[in-house]
Amino acid sequence: MIKIVVDAMGGDKGSSIVCEAILNFLKDNKDVEIIACGKKEELASLEGQARIIDARDIVPMEAGALEVMRLKNSSMMMAIKTMKDEGYDAVVSCGSTGGFLSAATINLKMIPGVKRAALVAPFPTQIKGKNVVILDIGANNENSPEELVQFALMGKLYSQSVYGVEVPKTYLLSNGAEEGKGAPEVKEAYKLLKEANFEGFSGNIEARYALNGDADVVVADGFTGNIFLKSSEGIAKIMSGMIKKAFKKNLWTKLGYLHVRKGMKEMSDTLDYKNTGGAMLLGVNGAVVKAHGSSDAYAFYNALRVAKKLAEKDVVNQIKKGIENA
Amino acid sequence: MIKIVVDAMGGDKGSSIVCEAILNFLKDNKDVEIIACGKKEELASLEGQARIIDARDIVPMEAGALEVMRLKNSSMMMAIKTMKDEGYDAVVSCGSTGGFLSAATINLKMIPGVKRAALVAPFPTQIKGKNVVILDIGANNENSPEELVQFALMGKLYSQSVYGVEVPKTYLLSNGAEEGKGAPEVKEAYKLLKEANFEGFSGNIEARYALNGDADVVVADGFTGNIFLKSSEGIAKIMSGMIKKAFKKNLWTKLGYLHVRKGMKEMSDTLDYKNTGGAMLLGVNGAVVKAHGSSDAYAFYNALRVAKKLAEKDVVNQIKKGIENA
Repeated sequence: MIKIVVDAMGGDKGSSIVCEAILNFLKDNKDVEIIACGKKEELASLEGQARIIDARDIVPMEAGALEVMRLKNSSMMMAIKTMKDEGYDAVVSCGSTGGFLSAATINLKMIPGVKRAALVAPFPTQIKGKNVVILDIGANNENSPEELVQFALMGKLYSQSVYGVEVPKTYLLSNGAEEGKGAPEVKEAYKLLKEANFEGFSGNIEARYALNGDADVVVADGFTGNIFLKSSEGIAKIMSGMIKKAFKKNLWTKLGYLHVRKGMKEMSDTLDYKNTGGAMLLGVNGAVVKAHGSSDAYAFYNALRVAKKLAEKDVVNQIKKGIENA
Repeated sequence: MIKIVVDAMGGDKGSSIVCEAILNFLKDNKDVEIIACGKKEELASLEGQARIIDARDIVPMEAGALEVMRLKNSSMMMAIKTMKDEGYDAVVSCGSTGGFLSAATINLKMIPGVKRAALVAPFPTQIKGKNVVILDIGANNENSPEELVQFALMGKLYSQSVYGVEVPKTYLLSNGAEEGKGAPEVKEAYKLLKEANFEGFSGNIEARYALNGDADVVVADGFTGNIFLKSSEGIAKIMSGMIKKAFKKNLWTKLGYLHVRKGMKEMSDTLDYKNTGGAMLLGVNGAVVKAHGSSDAYAFYNALRVAKKLAEKDVVNQIKKGIENA
């Protein structure tokens, strides 16, 4: 049995989408047990399906670490603590990113030897079915070269255990492919990875090639990774809006849409974060999955799928072993 | 008369596209004089239209500052020097970015008071016809908070003089909108701009909202700005590829394309760097325009258009005055 704790509150769309996602997920996955933390009157639909822990407080979307730690009776804190106390495999939340990541890190503690936890997500690439693992996409505001090197290691272990890539091609995200390009931390990390003969290290990669399917792992500090993530989101949104407008123009363009809607859907599915489901916080003791704040039931379902996969693949222990042996 | 010097060599597509662009541009702009620097036998088509300066060396695409400075007889160095010696208004090149920017900075010198030059480009936004000025998109590998503050000032002056925006809404690119978000330099720059009551300063902006049409100026260090630029390019390319694939599937989808091709063209035009033409190096004595390395004749034509506009709007002197009075 895979056991997942869910913070059912705190997302932009309220607890109903979380309940819907949980019910669908349990229907499709008989080998999963779920505990949901939240206001019990809002979680009534889960009765008989999932255990419910009544949690009266909701962490506001913009809450920082201190505020979360103070809200001991919040669904988020109860979820994290329940995971720890009852030895559950994974915890999922679509609440405040900063709050969730800090609270999870403080409560679950970092894996011995880990300098900083990193938020990792698989991105779609131009090669159908191939994902690239990018980290850190936002757990940190800055990172030292040594931390970047460790992100490379954690990304490699993630790629190996989740995707089964034997020797992941690992790159540093930079402003040029050549050695010597990049912010000072990137240059130094390059040197360290090269000196260490880091298996699979393939140099720098420019942001425009990060998703072309060559890389298995792309490493960035949390600030830069977050800019990468959100620029991609921004352009995809602008393009989608323009495509919609082009098809809505008149009857003929609407007819035109009928012919390509399958292809268009394939495109938007590939790029839709909702299919990815959730990002994982790598480096802490436990599978911590952050779903997008504006998740709908479909996106949250996929976040649960990610949590299950991480538990099945035993990613946390793979990271532990990998760090120990490094 | 607006006087422009062109480095006719060093781009991915050779000198022929540059000659084609120059001839078309001169046809459309009777108030412009052009000097072209390059191998005179390759520039024969320009005879009678533009002055030609024979330059035998070509700067390799990956050349750094030192290599460019050593190649004194290269088309790039000759172009920069000619601009300086003959008091031309602008210089345009589609050669090595790093080499061109450094050589231009060293030869033309920085405007007194400028700490670091910054590469600036207008980006399309969701609001039709509105551009947002983003800097630095790649002249620097790192920037101090004080440099970011000065980029905000130069961006504001650019937006005012080129686009006529009276009080440009100026943002810092960050990983969250709230004060206190961001890399340490961003946080400190925020504080400095706030303390200085910087006119138009509107706080942080996330990468996903940078192109939604709200911002007039977005400030980033050169490394982060370059990641932003290239992530956007990357996703746009992936999406375009997928759209093409969707339309090529069968006869019906091809027919569908006929109906929406106008709308699709509008989209790709909006996002195509070729329409933007070139990025300007702000902060040096002279209008220095960097065209994309893979420019075709159309893109290079637009780079010449940018150079003319910068000269007409007297951007360099506006920056000078603005820095003096700051």
